[in-house]
Amino acid sequence: MTMKVLGFAAQSATDELAPFRFERRDRRPDDVEIEILYCGVCHSDLHMARNDWGWSFYPLVPGHEIIGRVVGVGAEVRRFQPGDTVGIGCMVDSCRRCAACEQGLEQYCENGHTLTYASKDRHDGRPTYGGYSEKIVASESFVVKVPAGLNLAGAAPLLCAGITTWSPLRHWRAGPGRAVAVVGLGGLGHMGIKLAKALGAEVTLFTRSPGKEDDARRLGADHIVLSTDETQMKQAKNRFDLIIDTVPYAHDINPYLPTLSLDGTLVLVGLLGNLPPDLSTVPLLLGRKAVAGSVIGGIAETQEMLDFCGQHGITADIELIDIQDINAAYRRMLKSDVKYRFVIDMRSLKS
Amino acid sequence: MTMKVLGFAAQSATDELAPFRFERRDRRPDDVEIEILYCGVCHSDLHMARNDWGWSFYPLVPGHEIIGRVVGVGAEVRRFQPGDTVGIGCMVDSCRRCAACEQGLEQYCENGHTLTYASKDRHDGRPTYGGYSEKIVASESFVVKVPAGLNLAGAAPLLCAGITTWSPLRHWRAGPGRAVAVVGLGGLGHMGIKLAKALGAEVTLFTRSPGKEDDARRLGADHIVLSTDETQMKQAKNRFDLIIDTVPYAHDINPYLPTLSLDGTLVLVGLLGNLPPDLSTVPLLLGRKAVAGSVIGGIAETQEMLDFCGQHGITADIELIDIQDINAAYRRMLKSDVKYRFVIDMRSLKS
Repeated sequence: MTMKVLGFAAQSATDELAPFRFERRDRRPDDVEIEILYCGVCHSDLHMARNDWGWSFYPLVPGHEIIGRVVGVGAEVRRFQPGDTVGIGCMVDSCRRCAACEQGLEQYCENGHTLTYASKDRHDGRPTYGGYSEKIVASESFVVKVPAGLNLAGAAPLLCAGITTWSPLRHWRAGPGRAVAVVGLGGLGHMGIKLAKALGAEVTLFTRSPGKEDDARRLGADHIVLSTDETQMKQAKNRFDLIIDTVPYAHDINPYLPTLSLDGTLVLVGLLGNLPPDLSTVPLLLGRKAVAGSVIGGIAETQEMLDFCGQHGITADIELIDIQDINAAYRRMLKSDVKYRFVIDMRSLKS
Repeated sequence: MTMKVLGFAAQSATDELAPFRFERRDRRPDDVEIEILYCGVCHSDLHMARNDWGWSFYPLVPGHEIIGRVVGVGAEVRRFQPGDTVGIGCMVDSCRRCAACEQGLEQYCENGHTLTYASKDRHDGRPTYGGYSEKIVASESFVVKVPAGLNLAGAAPLLCAGITTWSPLRHWRAGPGRAVAVVGLGGLGHMGIKLAKALGAEVTLFTRSPGKEDDARRLGADHIVLSTDETQMKQAKNRFDLIIDTVPYAHDINPYLPTLSLDGTLVLVGLLGNLPPDLSTVPLLLGRKAVAGSVIGGIAETQEMLDFCGQHGITADIELIDIQDINAAYRRMLKSDVKYRFVIDMRSLKS
């Protein structure tokens, strides 16, 4: 029992994305069927389409920053009804039984969560397909409510860029009296600044580009530190309780460690891979500092973040595109030429 | 106003330690004058004597695991009187005003603490000399009480090896229901096992040497994991809330990170320097794990640790030596040929 939907897919690691007709499962009793309105374009969509991490399989329909409208619900669905505005992020399922899942931390599911695309469904073993498509079907446990009043296109990136910075900001207690720095001003970084500021923290942007100052202040940064300027870096010594490092490629974190305060933590959220050069333990030992990692966030945290964004009127700064422009958008992303997230207007799929 | 004391000093980075007569200050109003009974031999004594870290100055009298008896007190001293059994660890002073000092974390003093040896006194600028000597004079704020009943020679290593493992065990909440692993079975490692066990944690030793199993169990380890055995390392996946890594030389920490549980932390306590090879961020991100550092401990923590050791009858496993054997002891330490700490019987200085 399936339904046919239209999307955009990569047919191999070297093909551009192109229209693709595929099947979605019919609703199970706990499933919500969603018509997709907007889908954000995450850097990992590009990595996955091109098999940069080596575990992609094809056809691959990317997209995990999904905003849509409920068009049908299974018999056991309790929290949603047709017409609701909802979101789906990076995960559509997990084991729901392990210690992590029981804490609402499905992103750390010991048995491996099911990704929104390029995973296998836990029940029927069929591939999952992402949000660059007309519709999606998912268990209500992995669907979140979008608060009224939020710009829906701008809300899409909250489902990945938003929660990826929100989760560590909350876990490491960003708030009044705490000094938070964000490394990198891209999709994640610009959300990190907005959320940290709204949480009440004193916010600093580390950047290598002097030209980003005005934008950073507009987004909410209280201070900007040019990481290429040794004097500024020395002045920032021992200042930050928390650094959210959003840089998605290998980079030297050693210069940032002395800017952590006693018991401060630098949290990597953007890079899965090796981190050259050698880590210097000196600032870690001499200030009880830590280097940690964090990945997206749990479903309950995602709902909490969306509700917070609803209260504070926070959305991403986006550039709305038609699905037909996705390959050009990927090329621009490779040059960091986007402020700060592309979002696909899914109506374009029908044109 | 000074007094002459006898000690053992290195006169240069290449000289062996030899008898050395030097001056200690006369007591200030807040000073305690201590006759030294025992002094532990820490690996950093050897590093400092040989200028391995590049900041030694000479003559250098090592020793910062000091147990002694109060023989005199300044007019303002309130907590000690002649006859008291006391200890001095790695620090004899700090700024006492910064945020770290105000939290009792003098080891992280923002203005730099004064080391027990090879520092300059904050008031008169004269060099500090360590515990390989007859007597020491220090502010009562940096002197701790040794609880009755402890073997005094075995208690000496508590002042550095003990507190260096105690502080991170407490900070990262080792106790009942928590799984703690210790990497390395030397002076620090053997104390880490004893203290973690007495705190109620489930304790595992990571070792590269199969021969250490019996000793580790005797010290309190519940489990031993051979870090050279891939099967054992795989079985240890996601198991530890806390890993105390005591290894004092550059080593690859990547194999240990997957053995941390969700939110687990690996704490480096033995190595100030670079940590090759490249850190892999994958286990950090995918389990919100952290790599942190910790150095010795504050004075209040040191007193807490000594009181705990008094209640639980915990001392170090030591080999008692005469001061005249110190150079031979250093040579044996370089081969890790000591179970688990040399302690100098300071009576030998008079022979």
